[in-house]
Amino acid sequence: MVLGKVVGTVVSTRKEEALTGLKLLIVRELDTELKAKSSFVVAVDAVGAGRGEVVLYASGSSARLTDVTRDKPVDAVIMGIVDTLEIEGKELYQKRKSR
Amino acid sequence: MVLGKVVGTVVSTRKEEALTGLKLLIVRELDTELKAKSSFVVAVDAVGAGRGEVVLYASGSSARLTDVTRDKPVDAVIMGIVDTLEIEGKELYQKRKSR
Amino acid sequence: MVLGKVVGTVVSTRKEEALTGLKLLIVRELDTELKAKSSFVVAVDAVGAGRGEVVLYASGSSARLTDVTRDKPVDAVIMGIVDTLEIEGKELYQKRKSR
Amino acid sequence: MVLGKVVGTVVSTRKEEALTGLKLLIVRELDTELKAKSSFVVAVDAVGAGRGEVVLYASGSSARLTDVTRDKPVDAVIMGIVDTLEIEGKELYQKRKSR
Amino acid sequence: MVLGKVVGTVVSTRKEEALTGLKLLIVRELDTELKAKSSFVVAVDAVGAGRGEVVLYASGSSARLTDVTRDKPVDAVIMGIVDTLEIEGKELYQKRKSR
Repeated sequence: MVLGKVVGTVVSTRKEEALTGLKLLIVRELDTELKAKSSFVVAVDAVGAGRGEVVLYASGSSARLTDVTRDKPVDAVIMGIVDTLEIEGKELYQKRKSR
Repeated sequence: MVLGKVVGTVVSTRKEEALTGLKLLIVRELDTELKAKSSFVVAVDAVGAGRGEVVLYASGSSARLTDVTRDKPVDAVIMGIVDTLEIEGKELYQKRKSR
Repeated sequence: MVLGKVVGTVVSTRKEEALTGLKLLIVRELDTELKAKSSFVVAVDAVGAGRGEVVLYASGSSARLTDVTRDKPVDAVIMGIVDTLEIEGKELYQKRKSR
Repeated sequence: MVLGKVVGTVVSTRKEEALTGLKLLIVRELDTELKAKSSFVVAVDAVGAGRGEVVLYASGSSARLTDVTRDKPVDAVIMGIVDTLEIEGKELYQKRKSR
Repeated sequence: MVLGKVVGTVVSTRKEEALTGLKLLIVRELDTELKAKSSFVVAVDAVGAGRGEVVLYASGSSARLTDVTRDKPVDAVIMGIVDTLEIEGKELYQKRKSR
């Protein structure tokens, strides 16, 4: 899986019918310093991710193994929202708690 | 999925029989500023995309999960035409309405 | 799929048995100007491609969906020979007709 | 497979249900000198790997073929802990024995 | 498939059980001049390849379609040993005959 940050959304009306109702998010890949790289993907949201959140996404055939993406022509899915991230013993990221 | 722009077409007469009738489009990958990158793919069109349109395409085995590509030897498919694109709160792209 | 140009052949005697009889071609990836890039793959030929021809090849599991590659351990297949290539309204390539 | 080094962990509470209980590790890719590259993945741990260990991970659909990852939306799995690594006749790495 | 050269071996005792008995080789990717690139993979050997040999390896799900790798969590397999390599009409490589 790859760490990414949700930065935007895509709206598509004319699309393969199986995609109806799926939320399409623009996700920028993050480096180990949590800086956004230039590369990005459009991923289906399977977990209710919101803008600015750090997420995990899976690619390829594995992206079809969530409830919302099963057997659909999608190759990237957000399957987890990151709470904490620890690298080399340091907590690099902690999701702000919603109040 | 990846954002791309349709820039051309490929015609191939001598091909695997299962590909007969499929429309093969040349799609350049777009960056987050919607500038065309140098990389491109040849993707099967599953949604009636036209030249100049911004599209979403899926790669790998997922590219075989549309009605037109099922069980065929293709690894990229255009499965959505983009209407609007919003990044960091700004509308970066809006498809012109056809009159 | 990716556009490539057939530049050579590979001969392998000691190989997985399922590969017996397959033609293995060296294919260089082409850019949108039809110049050969440095990257290349070895692809199974499913359509009778010859040296110098511009071809389309598919990668990954899709490469196993031609008659000659079904269920075999190959990850790249030439599934079409390109006749014409049109980019941004210009015909960039036209296959010479055989006489 | 790719050689990597375990450098950290990811905690995700809100995630696809099938992922419950899986250990998510941050793995940096290693070069042939065993230096960590900048690229990294988040991989599910199938073998009890610990921080600092040199591991092998598999990507794509193959990542779903371990007992802990079967049919789950994950695209990278650590499936081996490296004991020794020999390149060009030199032993480049030997795992320290636990006492 | 990709051309590579076998440069070393990996030993892993603690691994997914399905991998028991498989030979894990370090394979450097070759360019069209047959120079080793910096990129490498760890591939399962399905054909009895030895150090220094030029080989073909397949990646992804196709890597599981040899007798020794079927249904196992591996994503790269050596499925052929190269005898000769011809590019642009020149024989670039010929395997030395064993005496």
